[in-house]
Amino acid sequence: MSQTRYDVTGVGNAIVDVIAPCQDDFLSDQNIEKGAMTLIDEARAEALYAAMAPGKEVSGGSAANTLAGIASMGGKGAYIGKVADDDLGKIFRHDLNAAGVDYTTKPLDSGPLTARCLINVTPDAQRSMSTFLGASVHFSEEDIDAEKISAARITYLEGYLFDRDEAKAAFVKAAEIARAAGRMTSLTLSDSFCVDRHRAAFRQLVRNHVDILFANEDEITSLYEVSSFDEAIDQVRQETRIAAITRSEKGAVLIEGGEATAIPAEPVDKIVDTTGAGDLFAAGVLSGLSKGLDLSSSGRLGAIAASEIISHIGARPNVELAILARSKGIDLEE
Amino acid sequence: MSQTRYDVTGVGNAIVDVIAPCQDDFLSDQNIEKGAMTLIDEARAEALYAAMAPGKEVSGGSAANTLAGIASMGGKGAYIGKVADDDLGKIFRHDLNAAGVDYTTKPLDSGPLTARCLINVTPDAQRSMSTFLGASVHFSEEDIDAEKISAARITYLEGYLFDRDEAKAAFVKAAEIARAAGRMTSLTLSDSFCVDRHRAAFRQLVRNHVDILFANEDEITSLYEVSSFDEAIDQVRQETRIAAITRSEKGAVLIEGGEATAIPAEPVDKIVDTTGAGDLFAAGVLSGLSKGLDLSSSGRLGAIAASEIISHIGARPNVELAILARSKGIDLEE
Repeated sequence: MSQTRYDVTGVGNAIVDVIAPCQDDFLSDQNIEKGAMTLIDEARAEALYAAMAPGKEVSGGSAANTLAGIASMGGKGAYIGKVADDDLGKIFRHDLNAAGVDYTTKPLDSGPLTARCLINVTPDAQRSMSTFLGASVHFSEEDIDAEKISAARITYLEGYLFDRDEAKAAFVKAAEIARAAGRMTSLTLSDSFCVDRHRAAFRQLVRNHVDILFANEDEITSLYEVSSFDEAIDQVRQETRIAAITRSEKGAVLIEGGEATAIPAEPVDKIVDTTGAGDLFAAGVLSGLSKGLDLSSSGRLGAIAASEIISHIGARPNVELAILARSKGIDLEE
Repeated sequence: MSQTRYDVTGVGNAIVDVIAPCQDDFLSDQNIEKGAMTLIDEARAEALYAAMAPGKEVSGGSAANTLAGIASMGGKGAYIGKVADDDLGKIFRHDLNAAGVDYTTKPLDSGPLTARCLINVTPDAQRSMSTFLGASVHFSEEDIDAEKISAARITYLEGYLFDRDEAKAAFVKAAEIARAAGRMTSLTLSDSFCVDRHRAAFRQLVRNHVDILFANEDEITSLYEVSSFDEAIDQVRQETRIAAITRSEKGAVLIEGGEATAIPAEPVDKIVDTTGAGDLFAAGVLSGLSKGLDLSSSGRLGAIAASEIISHIGARPNVELAILARSKGIDLEE
């Protein structure tokens, strides 16, 4: 095994979020599916952006949010993802580096703009996402930095990236490098529509390459085309070493072989914006597992990280998660 | 008098704010004057940005914040200011249009990037601003849209723009157009260092062209080079029709001829970020004056708008100020 330099290396869509408040009417007027992530092209991105309320631009991207969360938990992380050589790309790079994540992927030198996710947040704190993938999917096997994968305890792959064939090939390459180096590979399914679009490829990846799977209830039942949560659990426990399934306000379940550990949601004063809840849950769980904590403590770290992120706008932590976790009895430095 | 299409037209530095949290140590390490606005060049902007924590990008610019506030109070506003043809310029334009402000100034087609203000916010909610003026000062008499000035009850000029001679000339032109159309001209001094740099030019502008002057205590005493607030008041009341002087937590004083009206600060639960407090105070006062309200009610609107903006991160309102004002007994629709 090569030297461990990183707790986690993430591979994902490098995206800047544009977050603005809206009323429910706006979603229906604009034909936006509430609570979902919808892919849009550049023309639609321009039209929707023009119609949106004034926004805040903050760096996002599911796996990038997770890596920022891992760094905030005190872990060492690296990120692989593609931006364009434009202002939003520079913002993305700055924010990830400033969060303490090693990020050196070369920007795309021609072609589409840096990806952006237009997030309209309704008064009930639900976010509806319209994503222009832009430069982020112009990502191929060449961008997989073998050294960053083989030096990480866990390589974390973001399902959203599956929307382009070159990116799928890059995923498989990353998983193979991790395996060859004696490391673990983790995947998040990201979105039930994303699972629908690529079910066969996901099934193959999970079966052959994934040690730790993240999904929510919709995604895991969609993956196995079953109607109940229990049926999905029966399948997933045969295919991956660990599965971490989130259930919104019902918390999460972590499954390892015959064992299932229920993790209650961490209480919060007020839910402001659920953007990033799943990403930060993964950050907590991966932080725990990479430090050798048990399922229960790792799951609790996930719940704590998720509770912080839904208490404010944006999907990157506002406080040091390691300190928050310590205040709740879990010390990652021990 | 030409037809009134706007309550207020603002002329200012078109700037995107980058807001990030920091500790006091960071300010001393980076040699940043706490609480002040310091002008920086592009190289310094890059170095400081690289050193800053992950941030939120939000449209700013003093007069642009004021116009967004006036629109939120239900007023009709226009804005004149210069961005580059880049992502940050597009963000600036989008946010101002989406806030309901008419903004059509042609972007700079070559030369420096869109201006950015790097704002480091310490735990005491004070902001320390490092501003790269970029495209915003490449602004000349040609950019003054005479129709937008002559159609506005009040033209509002931002002192920050004074840092370049062409922009100074553009200011005088705007004031002359307003005067010729029988309109009022308002100026904010913006910053005591800005007043130091351009004292003679400001004195001349105030004496010859300004009907409504906005300043804080430091700025007004610097303008007249006097040591006490009372001496400054004695001078300013002879030179402008109305002066609105802010005094932080002591509130504000509005002066018209022999009359002085004290406006207490509006209480807030928690001060989070004082960015934009002066800009939004001006928004409230100008909203009131343009609708014909008296000094006391106009000042109260200023205090209400300022209290909203310091309760959250960013210098544009999060709620409709007209509704907030109505809940506090001032109905702008009456």
